[in-house]
Amino acid sequence: MCVPGCQEVVTQRLSRRNLFRGAAGMAAVAAFSSTPVAGAFAAPVSFTRVVDLTHVLDPAFPTFFGKPQLEVRKLFTFDKDGFNLNEWVVNEHTGTHLDTPFHFSKDGLSADALAIETLVVPLAVVDVSAKAAANPDYQLVAADLDAWEAANGPLPAGVALALYSGWEKKLGTDGFRNADAAGVLHFPGFHPDLAAVLARKGASGVVVDTLSLDHGASKDFAFHYKWLGSGRWGVEAAANLGALPPKGATLVVGGPKIKGASGGPSRVLALV
Amino acid sequence: MCVPGCQEVVTQRLSRRNLFRGAAGMAAVAAFSSTPVAGAFAAPVSFTRVVDLTHVLDPAFPTFFGKPQLEVRKLFTFDKDGFNLNEWVVNEHTGTHLDTPFHFSKDGLSADALAIETLVVPLAVVDVSAKAAANPDYQLVAADLDAWEAANGPLPAGVALALYSGWEKKLGTDGFRNADAAGVLHFPGFHPDLAAVLARKGASGVVVDTLSLDHGASKDFAFHYKWLGSGRWGVEAAANLGALPPKGATLVVGGPKIKGASGGPSRVLALV
Ligand SMILES: [Zn+2]
Ligand SMILES: [Zn+2]
Repeated sequence: MCVPGCQEVVTQRLSRRNLFRGAAGMAAVAAFSSTPVAGAFAAPVSFTRVVDLTHVLDPAFPTFFGKPQLEVRKLFTFDKDGFNLNEWVVNEHTGTHLDTPFHFSKDGLSADALAIETLVVPLAVVDVSAKAAANPDYQLVAADLDAWEAANGPLPAGVALALYSGWEKKLGTDGFRNADAAGVLHFPGFHPDLAAVLARKGASGVVVDTLSLDHGASKDFAFHYKWLGSGRWGVEAAANLGALPPKGATLVVGGPKIKGASGGPSRVLALV
Repeated sequence: MCVPGCQEVVTQRLSRRNLFRGAAGMAAVAAFSSTPVAGAFAAPVSFTRVVDLTHVLDPAFPTFFGKPQLEVRKLFTFDKDGFNLNEWVVNEHTGTHLDTPFHFSKDGLSADALAIETLVVPLAVVDVSAKAAANPDYQLVAADLDAWEAANGPLPAGVALALYSGWEKKLGTDGFRNADAAGVLHFPGFHPDLAAVLARKGASGVVVDTLSLDHGASKDFAFHYKWLGSGRWGVEAAANLGALPPKGATLVVGGPKIKGASGGPSRVLALV
């Protein structure tokens, strides 16, 4: 028996199963250390302003799979009831959101189990917007990190690395998903080889301004499997990365603390 | 026609309508300034550690009305699909969560419209746990504020005032809701007269470790109407307030940025 909405889910599951059972799948998980650095504040952190890295989320917000992932149901309204109150039906991977280790591993940490110390960390922003403008399938590689370090010094311990592709500016246009005639998405992401490099450098998390940590055309979600599978986290569809300095900000990932969550819409901000 | 779950909603709505149409209702809204102070960081803010003020949320988390307000639906699982992904059906006022002005006003700011600068603010903690232990219906009054200021100096501009009642320690026991034989809840809260006092002192928000800004036995939600109705916000069911200093911490309310939301589960933390 299939209630309304169920058929879509079944169809999605079947097509995604094929996708995720591909080459990079489970075999690629966690060849490197599974112990991210936590509590990186040896010295006091200071800031004078806050930058909101969170997009407004409504039912029309674009999704990786192209179907709405949020419904807002009005349960009570001020005019009728004297107060306003809604409930949401929401997919965990909607809007500006957290990807936990559990999203792409059998028993990695879920959202409730990620310690807050690993979600408040130094932020480095790598600007590959020029390369991405020339090539929407661009994947950030070790040479981009090397260039960042040559200009800014070594990545700080526990860092979150943000990939600024400029895609945040395309929100509200078809260019944000950038689907081709075959439905394949085209936007930048992290090259799978970067997972081990970042882990070796002690990074805690990664951030993108697109709909996926992997580039849109990835067939195997290899960066997701390697990075999340190693016990680290990601943030997708971040806003305002272009407004940040390359180094010196502190990232706060206000992820949901829901038991067993693979991620979820989050309030993400930078203390600058 | 009523699909599964609908009858409960209708029943709830009718009983809540009576409750909220009571004496203090709409007439009491916003007799004082509706312009909270924002961007209170004239000098750099610094911190060395993070305290998580968020409880883990699961479907059994207690609610004001006594019925579950969260369902977690597994859409994809690692064993079957190669990745984990859930969707939630969740009431906006569940777990450690934000109350926006829109919750108790016709057209106040909803969660997406509250600027991040008003959600990252200095935090003052008033400990009334001894009084609350003696009287579970205790309401925090101006004299409690006076005592805090006598010990700690004037409340800083834009402050969020947290009422530490000790109730957070009762989570997991019937004492957290503390319902009597008639179903009336008994836990501490803010006295309605304090809304105008706090607004005059320039406060942005309030925080409680109980299920409501008003004390549990309130018949009219008078503090909610006055405080939220004046354009300010609240956080309910906060954790770990007892671990904070009375002054000097900075509160971060990682509220949802969902269009039209009256509030929602949030990641709330203190930078100390
Ligand atoms: Zn995701
Ligand atoms: Zn509430």
